[in-house]
Amino acid sequence: MELNTQPTLMPNLAINNTRMQNDFEEISRIGVKPHGGICRPALSKEDLEARAWFADQIEEAGFLVKDDDAGNLSAVLRCGNPDAKTLLIGSHLDTVQNAGRYDGTVGMIAALECLRTIKEANLHLPVDLEVIDFTDDEGTWMPMFGSMSLTGRMPKGALKDTNGEKSTFRAALTRAGINPDHIHRAKREPGSLMGYIELHVEQGIRMEQSGVQIGIVNRIVGRKSYHVVFHGRAGHAGTASMTERRDALQGAALFVIQAHELVRGQFPEGVLNCGNLQVKPGAMTIIPSEATVIMEARHVNEESLMAMQLALGGLAQNCAESWRLGYDFTSTNHIPVAHMNDQIVGAIERACEEIGVSYTHLSSYASHNAQVMSRFAPAGMLFIPSVNGVSHNPEEFSRWEDVITGTNVLLHSIVNLALT
Amino acid sequence: MELNTQPTLMPNLAINNTRMQNDFEEISRIGVKPHGGICRPALSKEDLEARAWFADQIEEAGFLVKDDDAGNLSAVLRCGNPDAKTLLIGSHLDTVQNAGRYDGTVGMIAALECLRTIKEANLHLPVDLEVIDFTDDEGTWMPMFGSMSLTGRMPKGALKDTNGEKSTFRAALTRAGINPDHIHRAKREPGSLMGYIELHVEQGIRMEQSGVQIGIVNRIVGRKSYHVVFHGRAGHAGTASMTERRDALQGAALFVIQAHELVRGQFPEGVLNCGNLQVKPGAMTIIPSEATVIMEARHVNEESLMAMQLALGGLAQNCAESWRLGYDFTSTNHIPVAHMNDQIVGAIERACEEIGVSYTHLSSYASHNAQVMSRFAPAGMLFIPSVNGVSHNPEEFSRWEDVITGTNVLLHSIVNLALT
Repeated sequence: MELNTQPTLMPNLAINNTRMQNDFEEISRIGVKPHGGICRPALSKEDLEARAWFADQIEEAGFLVKDDDAGNLSAVLRCGNPDAKTLLIGSHLDTVQNAGRYDGTVGMIAALECLRTIKEANLHLPVDLEVIDFTDDEGTWMPMFGSMSLTGRMPKGALKDTNGEKSTFRAALTRAGINPDHIHRAKREPGSLMGYIELHVEQGIRMEQSGVQIGIVNRIVGRKSYHVVFHGRAGHAGTASMTERRDALQGAALFVIQAHELVRGQFPEGVLNCGNLQVKPGAMTIIPSEATVIMEARHVNEESLMAMQLALGGLAQNCAESWRLGYDFTSTNHIPVAHMNDQIVGAIERACEEIGVSYTHLSSYASHNAQVMSRFAPAGMLFIPSVNGVSHNPEEFSRWEDVITGTNVLLHSIVNLALT
Repeated sequence: MELNTQPTLMPNLAINNTRMQNDFEEISRIGVKPHGGICRPALSKEDLEARAWFADQIEEAGFLVKDDDAGNLSAVLRCGNPDAKTLLIGSHLDTVQNAGRYDGTVGMIAALECLRTIKEANLHLPVDLEVIDFTDDEGTWMPMFGSMSLTGRMPKGALKDTNGEKSTFRAALTRAGINPDHIHRAKREPGSLMGYIELHVEQGIRMEQSGVQIGIVNRIVGRKSYHVVFHGRAGHAGTASMTERRDALQGAALFVIQAHELVRGQFPEGVLNCGNLQVKPGAMTIIPSEATVIMEARHVNEESLMAMQLALGGLAQNCAESWRLGYDFTSTNHIPVAHMNDQIVGAIERACEEIGVSYTHLSSYASHNAQVMSRFAPAGMLFIPSVNGVSHNPEEFSRWEDVITGTNVLLHSIVNLALT
């Protein structure tokens, strides 16, 4: 069939809006709370319910349902050639607590709808296509657990319970039918993938502000997380002189304020979030002896990420000294800056041009499975606009027309990539 | 016997140092942790163990062991006259978590030692003497629970479990053999007490700095506690612009810093402690949507305490506005300034003069059961010095010679009071 060998000449190839909207409405009911927030933390009852629903859609559409030893759930459309590589199209169905409806979910139902459209159009592409829901993108237990496992970053024994810290995660995996001692078996063969592509909501306001329809990601932000612990001295809240105290919370509060000022002033492309502050002993009548700031720094330039670390470490020291405190500044995690693959970026650009959609290139300030995948296979991402940039919040919203546009660009990108 | 009718002419009447030091060493082993801190939170196994030990000492010394419906534990020395009033001598055996050895405990063993000394000296005083250990002075469950109950401030049904909040307290009481529905029965008859006197460590540095041996308390600090909740908006930690955020933790941290500055600057006699800060949702990857500062303000002048509240409430509003947050400023408890009774102050002054000990008058910045008792009967307090002012901390220390001096002043104060 002539059409099948020249799919790039099919500008009218388009996904089924009604079917996809129906999918979106159905999945938005799974894990929804009375106030409208979505709670599908990884491996929770609600997450497993969402996966069961997704597996039903895969079967109904006539694809192969596949799951691996890390719980990643896939829909596979084989091309028939046993030696063919796989083009992976992914995202995630899990959410943070009290999330919106779009983050992750839009990418999943878009990918599934693309697969259905390709099957219905009877396009015989020379690669296997696989839509994948990665386990625990949001880090309820371990951020990017699914893609980390698939790319072999979880060695045998990674979840061995030597000190008990992993025991609740092990229990959650086991409850979901995943053997924590077998997750290393989820590793794919290097070279088995031709690439990875992901559609996501921007979760920021840059696209909305510039009025562009598609954002083509060129790099994904690097992240470093920290525990900054200030050590003071407990004391009686009423009798200790206010100027003689070594109040750990005062030092920590000063750090929270000044760390934000530092990043805003010195690292305009950097982002910092102090997400928690934990105080010990935590009684109203006792001067805090310990206060821990739990924070994360992001930058799209790896060197700047390191410079931020240096500056924040120095600030912690200054804040500690100003209240005569001890301190520990500990880096707890590092996800390096990831660069997207030129060929995939090109395939998305061409898709936009084919169907007449405006696009721009931008950095992603959120992490995505594409970041992990980029260290294993060529990877690329496209964004659709988020209204007001709200995310990880029930008010998260993207216009449905933008979802449809994004899904059609994803569809044409897949076809373009499969044919390169 | 002439001596017995003129005990104020007995400057050599003195407590037994060795016996009291032995008491102190024994009780310091109850609830001690490997690092040296004492943990006897009210109604815990360790607190009950301390009470059992104290009851043994009472029996051994030949006093009547008495406990009431609020779990207050007493040693009673009756004078023989059934119409006699009672002079109550109290403190507490419970501690905060990770406490030192002196707070409360010194007052208890001093009071018991005074009772023993009076009995051994065969002094027939015209009042009943009662040494009392008040339940939960430190507020593990409810600050001053024991004295609040004894003075009738806990009405019938006060612990009725209408909303479940009191259920753990009820369980702890029940486990200790106290019926939570009968605590109102602990109320004494108004007029049954001739007074209340308490010895305590200063928990501050004023006495140490001035080199004085005894502090006679003239008033006890008023306290108001608050929950200051800042309401922001959750959001993605990486993608939301750092200047567009409504970050509840930033507002709370600003408040923690500026509230201290405000009190230090405008209320030199005031004290503030921000003892806890709780953040929701508390994830590193989510902008804090809610942050609650839990704090307590103290002042020895009731009007100034109210002025502090006004100033702190205004500050909360400013801090909220600077990050476009909502806020709630809620007063959760109020203990008014208490004035000590002139007659008891005079009895302590005379005791100091009789045995040649230096003294000063001062305000107490810590709350004590004397504060609650002062609203029910004439009440007074004396302090001994605290080294470095450290308290609510394992490093809390008072020189033993100061403990002995204080106990002898307490002894002579009791005798003076009983004979007025």
